[in-house]
Amino acid sequence: MAARAEFAEKGFDAASVRSVARRAGVDPALVRHYFGDKAALFAAGVIPQGVDPGRVAAGLVADGVGGLGERLLRTVLGVWDSDDGVTFRAVFSAIGSEDVPPHLVMGYVGREVFAQVAQVLPGPDQALRVSLVASHVVGVLVARHVLGVEPVASLDVDRLAALVGPTLQRYLVDPLPDA
Amino acid sequence: MAARAEFAEKGFDAASVRSVARRAGVDPALVRHYFGDKAALFAAGVIPQGVDPGRVAAGLVADGVGGLGERLLRTVLGVWDSDDGVTFRAVFSAIGSEDVPPHLVMGYVGREVFAQVAQVLPGPDQALRVSLVASHVVGVLVARHVLGVEPVASLDVDRLAALVGPTLQRYLVDPLPDA
Repeated sequence: MAARAEFAEKGFDAASVRSVARRAGVDPALVRHYFGDKAALFAAGVIPQGVDPGRVAAGLVADGVGGLGERLLRTVLGVWDSDDGVTFRAVFSAIGSEDVPPHLVMGYVGREVFAQVAQVLPGPDQALRVSLVASHVVGVLVARHVLGVEPVASLDVDRLAALVGPTLQRYLVDPLPDA
Repeated sequence: MAARAEFAEKGFDAASVRSVARRAGVDPALVRHYFGDKAALFAAGVIPQGVDPGRVAAGLVADGVGGLGERLLRTVLGVWDSDDGVTFRAVFSAIGSEDVPPHLVMGYVGREVFAQVAQVLPGPDQALRVSLVASHVVGVLVARHVLGVEPVASLDVDRLAALVGPTLQRYLVDPLPDA
């Protein structure tokens, strides 16, 4: 998708709706009509092609909550690995910008993925459980793909899943400590 | 520090050694002499003034490994909170850039903090333990301050420490699962 290439190459600040339209060979007004402003285009454009977050989430929870933590981690790592970091660079270029509305990407992922995962978790703190899992999974991605924190950055997926999966599973289903 | 203000305002790509020198009222050659290139200046400049990572780490481990996970999380959250996100924006602007040498900031933090924490942990996987902790703490920071993942983003520090501290402590001292 033209938007994805634009954001990945130029970063959020330097990217423009006009340039995305040029790449796609269409009128900028058309892009604005369908996507709105640059931020909305970004949200629609950075998800890797062929990845439907809603479908991925449905697949994850279809097998129930048992082992969900590890499956979730393996799936997320797989999605990011599959495009060689392109998405990551695009997302982080936007995070570095002060012009990006907060919760942009996470808002989309939240609607599509968080809600489906939350549905299979024990209440009443489903949203808290999912956000704790997200706060670890995001960190693993940043540590591996952005900061290169060793040895986590070089671990194979099986070893990483064995180490981190049980933590995620605890956040998903174990009783949460009180404040 | 001039470099810190420059990177926070302009982001890594738009910042320059020349402009940092101008802010500081010194010759660019002097800045280059003491710090080297822009990347080195970044690494030296983004750490909040008055925060000495080595000293912070020494304070953390002085009380031993008991409760270290929670103390570590509280300390990191406190450091980042203390400057209202300025450091975070500077760091993420650099992560978004393809010109930034990998492991830049983490390399510095690693030398100063990771090594001291690792010294008090059970062997032989001290580095792995520290990197697992880092992969969660970084994620908590990103979830709270960058992505705004709720409810983690709004939790008070005591509640967050109660939820995440035990996880970090497990990574620090519990037997690690085999691959």
